[in-house]
Amino acid sequence: MGDLPGKLTWKPGTVLHPLPVVLVGCGRIGTDANLITLAWTGIVCSEPPLLSISVRPSRHSHALILKHQVFTVNLPAATQATQVDWCGVKSGRDVDKFGHTGLTPLAGPQTGAPLVAECPVGLECRVVDSRSLGSHDLFIAEIVAVYADAALVDPDTQAFALERSAPLCYAHGNYYELGGYLGFFGFSVQKKPGKKAPGPPRRR
Amino acid sequence: MGDLPGKLTWKPGTVLHPLPVVLVGCGRIGTDANLITLAWTGIVCSEPPLLSISVRPSRHSHALILKHQVFTVNLPAATQATQVDWCGVKSGRDVDKFGHTGLTPLAGPQTGAPLVAECPVGLECRVVDSRSLGSHDLFIAEIVAVYADAALVDPDTQAFALERSAPLCYAHGNYYELGGYLGFFGFSVQKKPGKKAPGPPRRR
Repeated sequence: MGDLPGKLTWKPGTVLHPLPVVLVGCGRIGTDANLITLAWTGIVCSEPPLLSISVRPSRHSHALILKHQVFTVNLPAATQATQVDWCGVKSGRDVDKFGHTGLTPLAGPQTGAPLVAECPVGLECRVVDSRSLGSHDLFIAEIVAVYADAALVDPDTQAFALERSAPLCYAHGNYYELGGYLGFFGFSVQKKPGKKAPGPPRRR
Repeated sequence: MGDLPGKLTWKPGTVLHPLPVVLVGCGRIGTDANLITLAWTGIVCSEPPLLSISVRPSRHSHALILKHQVFTVNLPAATQATQVDWCGVKSGRDVDKFGHTGLTPLAGPQTGAPLVAECPVGLECRVVDSRSLGSHDLFIAEIVAVYADAALVDPDTQAFALERSAPLCYAHGNYYELGGYLGFFGFSVQKKPGKKAPGPPRRR
């Protein structure tokens, strides 16, 4: 046991879960388009909508993001775990990741960066700031466009229902599905029932 | 349909999933200890281990983090969804969140910031940088200590098994459990079977 009652003390490390695991598209279709799998990403601001990605300077995609100052963030479905994993292990210096995985690049209308057609959700992002933090460089980017499969619209309500994409989750080196629904933000103070539960995520 | 074949175009927004949803502890036990629920958090660097949180300047906790320059990040279990949600809806200006929820504050040995005893994992964090991004201020902080329940050790392997905490997940205003196991990082290029699957997460 450690410094606190009932707790083990670990050495400082990157302990946070669950995380999204995304396919970041960079470069240009026809010349240097590449994909990199990242879990070091998160939302950092609501207005304007900003996200961050952190990338090791040694990675092939790092130079592409620096050069073009734009990238895409593609949110995969759980069924795409093998392709996502493979793009995290291999380097774009050695292999054409779009060609090898069979994933289809679509030029982002706002940025020209390659979106992944097969991912249920894709974001186009424009870098607004970057800085070195140590092992990783942080890129803060504005989300300038969002694309989603039409299948993500709930046929009953016509509302967007992102959980219908059965997203891929990541936690400490392992991939998971998203599990059962527990409640909506604010449910703990809801006075009247009525908001419809979105139901469990489904495999696509 | 929108600008891309088969895709709907949405207005730019904070579309990223799944996200962790954490209880950030700030202030000092006995005086101004508070909790704030955040999903705008992520890992931004491995060495040193750094995470980010983004907080609206209007939030009560924002001033406490600015004042003390330390905070904790507590990773809740799915069974704690009600307490987590409540701490995201209420303000520490109006209510003692530890007292109301029954959650137990433990002073972090490294920082003095309040950890949540009942959360399976807790991190102590020291702010190393902050900046205004718009609606939210970004705090980048070093993870200086990690604590975990002894129950997170796998009895078979004696390895830490964070997925055993049955973590709480967040996606676009809804809370979920973590779902079924899909594979470990690198599984797509694994030549020989052998690595033990961690199995599905379990309710605590």
